[in-house]
Amino acid sequence: MEPADTPEPPYWAAIFTSRLVADRAGYDQTARRMLELARSQPGFLGVESAREDLGITVSYWRDEESIRRWKEHAEHAAARREGRDRWYADWRLRGCRVEREARSGGKERDR
Amino acid sequence: MEPADTPEPPYWAAIFTSRLVADRAGYDQTARRMLELARSQPGFLGVESAREDLGITVSYWRDEESIRRWKEHAEHAAARREGRDRWYADWRLRGCRVEREARSGGKERDR
Repeated sequence: MEPADTPEPPYWAAIFTSRLVADRAGYDQTARRMLELARSQPGFLGVESAREDLGITVSYWRDEESIRRWKEHAEHAAARREGRDRWYADWRLRGCRVEREARSGGKERDR
Repeated sequence: MEPADTPEPPYWAAIFTSRLVADRAGYDQTARRMLELARSQPGFLGVESAREDLGITVSYWRDEESIRRWKEHAEHAAARREGRDRWYADWRLRGCRVEREARSGGKERDR
């Protein structure tokens, strides 16, 4: 996975952090499906994900409204319920407004 | 590593995403030292980190001023230069204001 090529700030980020239980049967398939579904949503700008002991997925969105719609997407809401019931030992979800971005080979892009 | 126990929003997040070059000699030691140094800075609230192909480190801060001071810390600035010169094939750094947080076992905490 590559760092996401997001546009100039401001835009929004949803930072989802989690630890999984030992029995993660079915988790990878649902996680892949949710990534695929997120990519097709209006306002989706990109996603970055990595997991060691802790998993971090940051998805980027045009505005708060895009995040709200994604949160309310029926298949996504069902997957979150299944995740809370079956796979997540611990999680955080943070909604943020991205104000500044710097990147390799580029200059800093302020809001 | 555990999900960070951050306070009620608003607070700030620095999302650092990177891919490393093949020869990462010295990288792990410097990365560990920077985590240790960050934890001792004023305004530091927590950090979450994971790396597969892509590495994501999210550090949380009380306010923008805390992030600015950390950015200007001399040892940190030198480590960033070394990182750009030696270890990073590609990177992004995003500065964000966290507006909302939800967590396992808790209710949503709005700004």
